[in-house]
Amino acid sequence: MADKYLSRENLKFILYDVHQLEDLFSQSYFNEYSKESVDMMLEAAIDFSDRELFPYLEEMDRQGIRFKDGEVEIHPQVYKVLRELGESGWIMATLPNEEGGMQLPHMLYYITSFIYNAANNSAIGYTGLTGGAANLIRSFGNDDLKGKYAAKMYQGKWQGTMALTEPQAGSSLSDLTTKAVPQSDGSYKITGQKIFISGGDYKDVENVVHLMLARIEGAPLGTKGISLFVVPKKRIIEDNNLVDNDVITAGIYHKMGQHGYATTHLMIGEKDNCLGNLVGEANLGLKYMFQMMNDSRIVVGLTGASIASAAYYASLQYARERTQGRNPSSKNVEESPIEIINHADVRRMLFLQKAVVEGSLSLIMECAKYIDLMKVTNGEEKENLELLLELLTPIAKVYPTEMGIVAVNNGLQCLGGYGYCIDFPLEQLSRDIRITTLYEGTTGIQSLDLLGRKMLMQDGKAAKLLWIEINKTIAEANQFDQTIKYASQLHEALTKYQTIVQKLTGIAKQGKTEEFLADANLFMELSGIITIGWQWLKQGTVACKNQDMGQSNFLESKIQTMKYFFTYELPKIEGLMVTLMEDEIITIKGDKELLV
Amino acid sequence: MADKYLSRENLKFILYDVHQLEDLFSQSYFNEYSKESVDMMLEAAIDFSDRELFPYLEEMDRQGIRFKDGEVEIHPQVYKVLRELGESGWIMATLPNEEGGMQLPHMLYYITSFIYNAANNSAIGYTGLTGGAANLIRSFGNDDLKGKYAAKMYQGKWQGTMALTEPQAGSSLSDLTTKAVPQSDGSYKITGQKIFISGGDYKDVENVVHLMLARIEGAPLGTKGISLFVVPKKRIIEDNNLVDNDVITAGIYHKMGQHGYATTHLMIGEKDNCLGNLVGEANLGLKYMFQMMNDSRIVVGLTGASIASAAYYASLQYARERTQGRNPSSKNVEESPIEIINHADVRRMLFLQKAVVEGSLSLIMECAKYIDLMKVTNGEEKENLELLLELLTPIAKVYPTEMGIVAVNNGLQCLGGYGYCIDFPLEQLSRDIRITTLYEGTTGIQSLDLLGRKMLMQDGKAAKLLWIEINKTIAEANQFDQTIKYASQLHEALTKYQTIVQKLTGIAKQGKTEEFLADANLFMELSGIITIGWQWLKQGTVACKNQDMGQSNFLESKIQTMKYFFTYELPKIEGLMVTLMEDEIITIKGDKELLV
Repeated sequence: MADKYLSRENLKFILYDVHQLEDLFSQSYFNEYSKESVDMMLEAAIDFSDRELFPYLEEMDRQGIRFKDGEVEIHPQVYKVLRELGESGWIMATLPNEEGGMQLPHMLYYITSFIYNAANNSAIGYTGLTGGAANLIRSFGNDDLKGKYAAKMYQGKWQGTMALTEPQAGSSLSDLTTKAVPQSDGSYKITGQKIFISGGDYKDVENVVHLMLARIEGAPLGTKGISLFVVPKKRIIEDNNLVDNDVITAGIYHKMGQHGYATTHLMIGEKDNCLGNLVGEANLGLKYMFQMMNDSRIVVGLTGASIASAAYYASLQYARERTQGRNPSSKNVEESPIEIINHADVRRMLFLQKAVVEGSLSLIMECAKYIDLMKVTNGEEKENLELLLELLTPIAKVYPTEMGIVAVNNGLQCLGGYGYCIDFPLEQLSRDIRITTLYEGTTGIQSLDLLGRKMLMQDGKAAKLLWIEINKTIAEANQFDQTIKYASQLHEALTKYQTIVQKLTGIAKQGKTEEFLADANLFMELSGIITIGWQWLKQGTVACKNQDMGQSNFLESKIQTMKYFFTYELPKIEGLMVTLMEDEIITIKGDKELLV
Repeated sequence: MADKYLSRENLKFILYDVHQLEDLFSQSYFNEYSKESVDMMLEAAIDFSDRELFPYLEEMDRQGIRFKDGEVEIHPQVYKVLRELGESGWIMATLPNEEGGMQLPHMLYYITSFIYNAANNSAIGYTGLTGGAANLIRSFGNDDLKGKYAAKMYQGKWQGTMALTEPQAGSSLSDLTTKAVPQSDGSYKITGQKIFISGGDYKDVENVVHLMLARIEGAPLGTKGISLFVVPKKRIIEDNNLVDNDVITAGIYHKMGQHGYATTHLMIGEKDNCLGNLVGEANLGLKYMFQMMNDSRIVVGLTGASIASAAYYASLQYARERTQGRNPSSKNVEESPIEIINHADVRRMLFLQKAVVEGSLSLIMECAKYIDLMKVTNGEEKENLELLLELLTPIAKVYPTEMGIVAVNNGLQCLGGYGYCIDFPLEQLSRDIRITTLYEGTTGIQSLDLLGRKMLMQDGKAAKLLWIEINKTIAEANQFDQTIKYASQLHEALTKYQTIVQKLTGIAKQGKTEEFLADANLFMELSGIITIGWQWLKQGTVACKNQDMGQSNFLESKIQTMKYFFTYELPKIEGLMVTLMEDEIITIKGDKELLV
């Protein structure tokens, strides 16, 4: 087992120095918080992870999930974690005080989530889902549902899920067919199947509450006819007793990784005895669900970054301890071998990981800050924050997961053959992280969302707002000797990016939808590099500022990693530009027989 | 299970059309072969794979290897395959007729190896290793060793291995310490440990013959003091009886993938009773071993390409069958969903895989043809072929493995959540292929070999020879309307490549070894793209030629994939150029404390 899965110093740097968390505390909504209380919270979260999460990471992978006699058996630690985080108030911490919450800034909610995920991505998934599902009831459900279901979920007593996917409806939710038939008492009889339901069932927990999408009998086809329901495993009858609600687990999925995280296949209403409650209005289900999905997308991005963090520190530790070979300029075999961290290529692989982890976390904190500021602003200011958040959400999902996979893969490579063996955590982490580009909308879906929807909103207003933000960072970076070169690189990159945006939106305006969207994935990759370049320039600039108050290895390391990003990662836009400027689009020509 | 793991038509196109296998048959050494006999051999190899290899791919993964009471238990099919391929003469097929071989062209040996690996990469590894180890005895051992050991290995009765790595000596073989002490009878007493020994031991087989590197007592430090030994699990005593030779399996490695391929940890001479025989002369062991390593490097590249082939056809099948979503320009939910192969991004992921698989195989066939031609040429012609082969070997190892991982990863992504589950082969294939960038020298080691050794040989003669070959292909491509654009792209890319080579070799000449080699990996990536671009231009040109004799989907698909490569892959050199032209080399600056 590795000693370390994150850097405290980095979390604080990103929170306080880069994203100015303390600015929030001057707002009355957040004024119960202070740097001191936040420091304590971070320590408590790390302490909890050290005790309750990290020690079980490997064990949960090895034990896996068992499905026996219709029951799902998982590691007992999962429910303990859910209970403890419920009792501590963490699951509902972002709610207003008057609803029993702590008005916790999202920046802190996400950063503690980063800590928990870095320690044990399988175990914490259950808790995260429960919070998201409860929030959905809280936002759109009536008081009855809030009192009966959300309360138990916030307390960490009952598990929550999001139940969207069906065998024939994955990326295309508009084709879902789970049926809801109104009953005389106001409830709905539900029948259908849901697959790939994370945390969908396990023995230890008293009840599982599915936030389920279904189509009310007679509702329109497509997304316009989708409604949201609370469908519990056990429904509540008189005197708060629970009875079986005809939600049967047909099986579990055997996955490459996240062996501790139960993924279930549910049969709903097979005995015609499953009742659900409508959340909010009929036919608005997908819109409601997007609240949870948008949050989940950022959290999946966060999970990618956090797994990559654990991998980075495991490979860094190995690279500091393992000796092998000599410096290429002095291959004297009588000298002792050197630690492999001294080899340029190993350092490249370490910088790559650090650049991905810390760049991604910084972007996610940027998003979190917008969420927090939306609570204390209004009018155009608030609308602008919303637009920026909408634009950045798919990027914050894709970059940390796609590049997280690359990062962990490089971490594994640092260990040579040992990296491929279960004796070191890289093997597991590279299996675990692989799912993150699939969860909550694949990279392809996110890319269509970014280019096909977000870039076009209000005639491209969101992108223009982003460019203003990036230019602010460039202006600041122009003030420091060590960042001025990179400020000009980012400025040039942004100009190229704008050229591409203009070209693509021009195609969209001609109504050539297929041509417009064919290379959405490449546009996403380009957007990710620009956006993370922005975050690295921000971090580098802050590091320069802080250096005026005192040098440190930490700050020097930040500056070096910024240089790494601008030297090794940013130039990738050159190739993407060439491809995106090409007029002949290979992938939409010819029929499918062209692939043999 | 997928239906298909390779394309016959592609194998034949690459063999006959692109690399002109039939040219060889006019040489007396190969004149027993004809297109008809080769076609039959290919069918036989595919038939063997369909029967004996492919059906066990998944089963071997699920069952894994057991280590019990000091014994290694593997799937029984492994030894059956070794025996059958031994009996059929395949293991020694490339040997001259007078030594019992078939004078089989390496092009055919490698392409059958591709077929076997695509069907079951774990099972065939044992046989491939046995052949390589036997070839080493055949090339450098005396008649006694050939008669006693190599013969049994060629017959597929005994297992062969290469035993190099030790706990403290992996990438740096110069530090190996396994000791050999001369005995009065001419043998050597061996003591030491060897780790990561593939196929190192299993119950079914009568004997395992390790081709082992060790240091004779008193030999110099470093690579100059390494000798090669035959160290059997059981040694031969009078009347050809076998007795235990004190080679103990201490354990097996539990790996991410290749669960059917036993990776062992050996303790040698713990009871001071292990005897080995010197192969060839003392202290020349590493030089000898390089014969096997060079071959193995190409075979590992081939394995990468073949696993990616299996993944490509599995994801292609899924993409043709699975329906989901609609065309972005006509999102009418009343229409039926379309097969996902119709989505541009899915097609991009399929083209990517096809480009990697077929480009890699073509490069490996280029190498194989040089090996074959070396047998029928001499003087400068032969020397030039040797230089080209030496230059291309590390590239043929790295591109198919590094990009093979990317390809399989894209194959998995095509399946969405199902790709992450064990119900489809992508999950296993992506675990299996991950080891290929570590086997036989990591990508980092190959990159140092390419830039630090191969590019400098004879003042860069090998690279110049390669450029001549590439320019020949460009000249041919200039004759067809459909390839002329890509010929000019490759020409431009080659010019850029030459600029980088000039820059880097200039640094080498100044004696700045660290600066020279710091970005060897990026130089490798650049070299791989240029080289595979060459192979795609070759394939595209041949497809155009063949189209004059008749159109086909197959040829059209080749041309489209060439276009894919030049549109999506070749432009990546732009970013690599920027990084490689940068003078400030981040990875060799500062001390290791800069990574925190």
